[in-house]
Amino acid sequence: MRFSARGSTQEVEDGLSFAPKFDADGLVTCVATDAASGEVLMVAHMNAEALAKSIESGEAWYYSRSRRALWRKGESSGHVQRIVEMRVDCDQDAVWIRVEQAGAGACHTGRRSCFYRAVPLGQKGALALEFHEQERAFDPATVYGTDKG
Amino acid sequence: MRFSARGSTQEVEDGLSFAPKFDADGLVTCVATDAASGEVLMVAHMNAEALAKSIESGEAWYYSRSRRALWRKGESSGHVQRIVEMRVDCDQDAVWIRVEQAGAGACHTGRRSCFYRAVPLGQKGALALEFHEQERAFDPATVYGTDKG
Repeated sequence: MRFSARGSTQEVEDGLSFAPKFDADGLVTCVATDAASGEVLMVAHMNAEALAKSIESGEAWYYSRSRRALWRKGESSGHVQRIVEMRVDCDQDAVWIRVEQAGAGACHTGRRSCFYRAVPLGQKGALALEFHEQERAFDPATVYGTDKG
Repeated sequence: MRFSARGSTQEVEDGLSFAPKFDADGLVTCVATDAASGEVLMVAHMNAEALAKSIESGEAWYYSRSRRALWRKGESSGHVQRIVEMRVDCDQDAVWIRVEQAGAGACHTGRRSCFYRAVPLGQKGALALEFHEQERAFDPATVYGTDKG
Protein backbone atom coordinates (compact mmCIF):
# COMPACT_ATOMS: atom_id res chain seq x y z
CA MET A 1 0.00 0.00 0.00
CA ARG A 2 1.39 3.33 -1.04
CA PHE A 3 -0.23 6.57 0.05
CA SER A 4 0.21 9.67 -2.10
CA ALA A 5 2.08 12.76 -0.96
CA ARG A 6 -0.13 15.67 0.11
CA GLY A 7 -0.63 18.13 -2.74
CA SER A 8 -2.43 21.47 -2.93
CA THR A 9 -5.76 21.96 -1.20
CA GLN A 10 -7.50 21.52 -4.54
CA GLU A 11 -5.66 18.27 -5.24
CA VAL A 12 -6.49 16.95 -1.77
CA GLU A 13 -10.18 17.94 -1.95
CA ASP A 14 -11.02 17.38 -5.61
CA GLY A 15 -8.43 14.86 -6.80
CA LEU A 16 -8.28 11.08 -6.97
CA SER A 17 -5.05 10.68 -5.01
CA PHE A 18 -5.37 9.09 -1.60
CA ALA A 19 -3.13 11.26 0.58
CA PRO A 20 -4.24 10.78 4.20
CA LYS A 21 -3.45 13.59 6.63
CA PHE A 22 -2.01 11.81 9.64
CA ASP A 23 -1.89 13.97 12.78
CA ALA A 24 1.13 14.63 15.00
CA ASP A 25 0.70 11.13 16.47
CA GLY A 26 0.49 9.57 13.00
CA LEU A 27 -3.23 8.88 13.17
CA VAL A 28 -6.42 9.50 11.21
CA THR A 29 -9.87 9.32 12.80
CA CYS A 30 -12.11 6.44 11.74
CA VAL A 31 -15.89 6.30 12.17
CA ALA A 32 -17.42 2.83 11.88
CA THR A 33 -21.14 2.58 11.17
CA ASP A 34 -23.34 -0.48 10.89
CA ALA A 35 -23.85 -1.09 7.16
CA ALA A 36 -27.41 -2.26 7.75
CA SER A 37 -28.78 0.13 10.39
CA GLY A 38 -26.55 3.18 9.84
CA GLU A 39 -25.88 3.37 13.59
CA VAL A 40 -22.49 4.72 14.60
CA LEU A 41 -20.78 1.77 16.28
CA MET A 42 -17.49 3.38 17.32
CA VAL A 43 -14.96 6.11 16.71
CA ALA A 44 -11.34 4.97 16.73
CA HIS A 45 -8.00 5.73 15.12
CA MET A 46 -5.82 4.20 12.43
CA ASN A 47 -2.12 4.70 11.84
CA ALA A 48 -0.69 4.14 8.35
CA GLU A 49 -0.22 0.42 8.97
CA ALA A 50 -3.76 -0.08 10.31
CA LEU A 51 -5.20 1.87 7.39
CA ALA A 52 -3.20 -0.15 4.85
CA LYS A 53 -4.18 -3.46 6.48
CA SER A 54 -7.85 -2.42 6.55
CA ILE A 55 -7.79 -1.59 2.84
CA GLU A 56 -5.88 -4.70 1.82
CA SER A 57 -7.83 -7.17 3.97
CA GLY A 58 -11.28 -5.58 3.92
CA GLU A 59 -11.42 -5.99 7.71
CA ALA A 60 -11.03 -3.21 10.27
CA TRP A 61 -7.64 -2.72 11.89
CA TYR A 62 -7.11 0.12 14.34
CA TYR A 63 -4.35 1.64 16.41
CA SER A 64 -5.01 1.68 20.14
CA ARG A 65 -3.76 4.92 21.65
CA SER A 66 -4.03 3.55 25.22
CA ARG A 67 -2.15 0.34 24.44
CA ARG A 68 0.07 1.91 21.77
CA ALA A 69 -0.42 -1.10 19.55
CA LEU A 70 -1.86 -2.14 16.23
CA TRP A 71 -5.14 -3.87 16.85
CA ARG A 72 -7.17 -6.12 14.59
CA LYS A 73 -10.78 -5.54 15.62
CA GLY A 74 -12.18 -8.83 16.90
CA GLU A 75 -8.76 -10.37 17.46
CA SER A 76 -9.66 -11.50 20.97
CA SER A 77 -13.46 -11.23 20.91
CA GLY A 78 -14.20 -12.64 17.46
CA HIS A 79 -16.24 -9.49 16.85
CA VAL A 80 -14.53 -8.63 13.57
CA GLN A 81 -15.76 -5.88 11.27
CA ARG A 82 -16.00 -6.67 7.57
CA ILE A 83 -15.73 -3.42 5.64
CA VAL A 84 -18.49 -2.98 3.06
CA GLU A 85 -17.32 0.46 1.98
CA MET A 86 -14.63 2.97 2.97
CA ARG A 87 -14.92 6.70 2.35
CA VAL A 88 -12.50 9.55 2.98
CA ASP A 89 -13.46 13.12 3.82
CA CYS A 90 -12.63 16.38 2.04
CA ASP A 91 -9.30 17.11 3.74
CA GLN A 92 -8.50 13.40 4.12
CA ASP A 93 -7.93 13.35 7.87
CA ALA A 94 -10.89 11.06 8.59
CA VAL A 95 -12.28 7.86 7.09
CA TRP A 96 -15.75 6.40 7.39
CA ILE A 97 -16.19 2.66 7.15
CA ARG A 98 -19.55 0.94 6.77
CA VAL A 99 -19.16 -2.48 8.34
CA GLU A 100 -20.85 -5.79 8.94
CA GLN A 101 -20.27 -6.26 12.65
CA ALA A 102 -19.70 -9.91 13.59
CA GLY A 103 -20.88 -11.10 17.00
CA ALA A 104 -23.04 -9.30 19.49
CA GLY A 105 -21.40 -5.92 19.46
CA ALA A 106 -18.56 -3.50 18.82
CA CYS A 107 -18.09 -2.01 22.28
CA HIS A 108 -15.75 -3.47 24.86
CA THR A 109 -18.37 -2.77 27.54
CA GLY A 110 -20.68 -5.35 25.99
CA ARG A 111 -22.97 -3.05 24.06
CA ARG A 112 -23.63 -3.19 20.35
CA SER A 113 -22.48 0.43 19.88
CA CYS A 114 -20.12 2.51 22.00
CA PHE A 115 -22.72 5.29 21.85
CA TYR A 116 -25.18 3.78 24.34
CA ARG A 117 -25.90 6.96 26.30
CA ALA A 118 -27.69 10.12 25.20
CA VAL A 119 -26.81 13.66 26.28
CA PRO A 120 -30.02 15.63 26.99
CA LEU A 121 -30.29 18.88 25.04
CA GLY A 122 -31.54 22.33 25.95
CA GLN A 123 -30.05 22.34 29.44
CA LYS A 124 -27.79 24.90 31.00
CA GLY A 125 -26.81 23.40 34.35
CA ALA A 126 -25.48 20.00 35.32
CA LEU A 127 -26.98 17.19 33.30
CA ALA A 128 -27.42 13.45 33.64
CA LEU A 129 -26.82 11.08 30.76
CA GLU A 130 -29.69 8.84 29.67
CA PHE A 131 -29.08 5.22 28.81
CA HIS A 132 -30.23 4.38 25.31
CA GLU A 133 -29.04 0.80 25.46
CA GLN A 134 -28.90 -0.36 29.08
CA GLU A 135 -28.70 -4.08 28.51
CA ARG A 136 -25.38 -5.54 27.50
CA ALA A 137 -25.48 -7.61 24.33
CA PHE A 138 -22.68 -9.79 25.66
CA ASP A 139 -20.64 -10.29 28.82
CA PRO A 140 -17.34 -8.49 28.31
CA ALA A 141 -15.59 -10.50 31.05
CA THR A 142 -16.36 -13.74 29.24
CA VAL A 143 -15.58 -12.47 25.77
CA TYR A 144 -12.49 -10.38 26.44
CA GLY A 145 -11.06 -11.65 29.72
CA THR A 146 -8.65 -8.92 30.65
CA ASP A 147 -7.88 -7.97 27.05
CA LYS A 148 -9.92 -5.72 24.83
CA GLY A 149 -10.47 -5.86 21.12
CA MET B 1 -23.16 24.11 31.47
CA ARG B 2 -21.11 22.18 33.98
CA PHE B 3 -19.23 19.06 33.00
CA SER B 4 -18.46 16.47 35.66
CA ALA B 5 -14.94 15.58 36.78
CA ARG B 6 -13.58 12.34 35.37
CA GLY B 7 -14.10 9.45 37.79
CA SER B 8 -13.06 5.82 37.67
CA THR B 9 -13.28 3.85 34.43
CA GLN B 10 -16.48 2.25 35.70
CA GLU B 11 -18.01 5.62 36.54
CA VAL B 12 -17.07 7.00 33.11
CA GLU B 13 -18.36 3.96 31.21
CA ASP B 14 -21.39 2.92 33.23
CA GLY B 15 -22.42 6.08 35.05
CA LEU B 16 -24.77 8.95 34.34
CA SER B 17 -22.20 11.73 34.78
CA PHE B 18 -21.22 13.61 31.65
CA ALA B 19 -17.44 13.91 32.02
CA PRO B 20 -16.02 14.52 28.53
CA LYS B 21 -12.40 13.53 27.96
CA PHE B 22 -10.91 16.54 26.18
CA ASP B 23 -7.59 15.80 24.50
CA ALA B 24 -4.31 17.71 24.90
CA ASP B 25 -5.75 20.44 22.66
CA GLY B 26 -8.96 20.61 24.71
CA LEU B 27 -11.09 18.88 22.07
CA VAL B 28 -13.48 15.96 21.67
CA THR B 29 -14.28 14.39 18.31
CA CYS B 30 -17.79 14.92 16.95
CA VAL B 31 -19.44 12.81 14.25
CA ALA B 32 -22.48 14.39 12.59
CA THR B 33 -24.89 12.12 10.74
CA ASP B 34 -28.00 13.00 8.77
CA ALA B 35 -30.94 12.18 11.05
CA ALA B 36 -33.02 11.02 8.09
CA SER B 37 -30.58 9.08 5.92
CA GLY B 38 -27.98 8.02 8.49
CA GLU B 39 -25.20 9.25 6.19
CA VAL B 40 -22.10 10.58 7.91
CA LEU B 41 -22.03 14.27 6.99
CA MET B 42 -18.78 15.34 8.68
CA VAL B 43 -16.27 14.69 11.43
CA ALA B 44 -15.19 17.76 13.38
CA HIS B 45 -14.10 18.82 16.85
CA MET B 46 -15.68 20.60 19.79
CA ASN B 47 -13.95 22.34 22.67
CA ALA B 48 -15.75 22.74 25.99
CA GLU B 49 -17.42 25.96 24.86
CA ALA B 50 -18.60 24.51 21.54
CA LEU B 51 -19.95 21.43 23.29
CA ALA B 52 -21.78 23.52 25.89
CA LYS B 53 -23.26 25.82 23.23
CA SER B 54 -24.38 22.82 21.16
CA ILE B 55 -26.14 21.27 24.14
CA GLU B 56 -27.76 24.51 25.29
CA SER B 57 -28.87 25.70 21.85
CA GLY B 58 -29.60 22.39 20.13
CA GLU B 59 -27.56 23.59 17.16
CA ALA B 60 -24.07 22.42 16.21
CA TRP B 61 -21.11 24.54 17.27
CA TYR B 62 -17.59 23.36 16.52
CA TYR B 63 -14.02 24.44 17.12
CA SER B 64 -11.99 24.96 13.97
CA ARG B 65 -8.46 23.68 14.47
CA SER B 66 -7.20 25.44 11.34
CA ARG B 67 -8.74 28.81 12.23
CA ARG B 68 -8.36 28.29 16.00
CA ALA B 69 -11.81 29.68 16.55
CA LEU B 70 -15.22 28.73 17.83
CA TRP B 71 -17.50 28.17 14.88
CA ARG B 72 -21.28 28.05 14.68
CA LYS B 73 -22.03 25.68 11.83
CA GLY B 74 -23.93 27.58 9.17
CA GLU B 75 -22.84 30.99 10.48
CA SER B 76 -21.77 32.18 7.03
CA SER B 77 -23.50 29.64 4.78
CA GLY B 78 -26.86 29.37 6.50
CA HIS B 79 -26.33 25.59 6.49
CA VAL B 80 -27.04 25.16 10.19
CA GLN B 81 -27.38 21.77 11.84
CA ARG B 82 -30.29 21.26 14.23
CA ILE B 83 -29.37 18.49 16.64
CA VAL B 84 -32.05 15.83 16.95
CA GLU B 85 -30.05 13.68 19.36
CA MET B 86 -26.61 13.70 20.95
CA ARG B 87 -24.85 10.57 22.19
CA VAL B 88 -21.53 10.08 23.96
CA ASP B 89 -19.29 7.03 23.66
CA CYS B 90 -18.02 4.65 26.33
CA ASP B 91 -14.89 6.58 27.33
CA GLN B 92 -16.53 9.96 26.62
CA ASP B 93 -13.94 11.30 24.19
CA ALA B 94 -16.34 11.38 21.22
CA VAL B 95 -19.89 12.54 20.64
CA TRP B 96 -22.29 11.58 17.89
CA ILE B 97 -24.95 14.06 16.82
CA ARG B 98 -27.87 13.19 14.55
CA VAL B 99 -28.79 16.40 12.77
CA GLU B 100 -31.25 18.00 10.41
CA GLN B 101 -28.94 19.66 7.90
CA ALA B 102 -30.30 22.97 6.63
CA GLY B 103 -29.49 24.01 3.07
CA ALA B 104 -27.90 21.96 0.35
CA GLY B 105 -25.04 20.43 2.26
CA ALA B 106 -22.58 20.20 5.14
CA CYS B 107 -19.27 20.27 3.27
CA HIS B 108 -17.41 23.47 2.45
CA THR B 109 -16.59 22.01 -0.99
CA GLY B 110 -20.26 22.14 -1.96
CA ARG B 111 -21.18 18.52 -1.36
CA ARG B 112 -23.90 17.28 0.93
CA SER B 113 -21.41 15.15 2.92
CA CYS B 114 -17.66 15.59 3.37
CA PHE B 115 -17.32 11.88 2.57
CA TYR B 116 -17.89 12.14 -1.20
CA ARG B 117 -15.06 9.82 -2.27
CA ALA B 118 -14.68 6.07 -1.77
CA VAL B 119 -11.42 4.25 -1.09
CA PRO B 120 -11.34 1.00 -3.12
CA LEU B 121 -10.70 -2.10 -1.01
CA GLY B 122 -8.62 -5.23 -1.60
CA GLN B 123 -5.71 -3.42 -3.23
CA LYS B 124 -2.06 -3.56 -2.30
CA GLY B 125 -0.40 -0.97 -4.55
CA ALA B 126 -1.24 2.64 -5.31
CA LEU B 127 -4.96 3.29 -5.48
CA ALA B 128 -7.25 5.91 -6.97
CA LEU B 129 -10.21 7.31 -5.08
CA GLU B 130 -13.65 6.96 -6.65
CA PHE B 131 -16.11 9.82 -6.56
CA HIS B 132 -19.34 8.83 -4.90
CA GLU B 133 -20.89 12.25 -5.17
CA GLN B 134 -19.27 14.14 -8.05
CA GLU B 135 -21.80 16.89 -8.45
CA ARG B 136 -21.71 19.75 -6.03
CA ALA B 137 -25.01 20.43 -4.29
CA PHE B 138 -24.15 24.12 -4.09
CA ASP B 139 -21.49 26.54 -5.29
CA PRO B 140 -19.10 27.09 -2.39
CA ALA B 141 -17.77 30.35 -3.85
CA THR B 142 -21.26 31.84 -3.82
CA VAL B 143 -22.25 30.48 -0.45
CA TYR B 144 -19.06 30.98 1.51
CA GLY B 145 -17.08 33.61 -0.34
CA THR B 146 -13.67 33.27 1.19
CA ASP B 147 -14.96 32.14 4.57
CA LYS B 148 -15.97 28.65 5.53
CA GLY B 149 -18.66 27.45 7.88
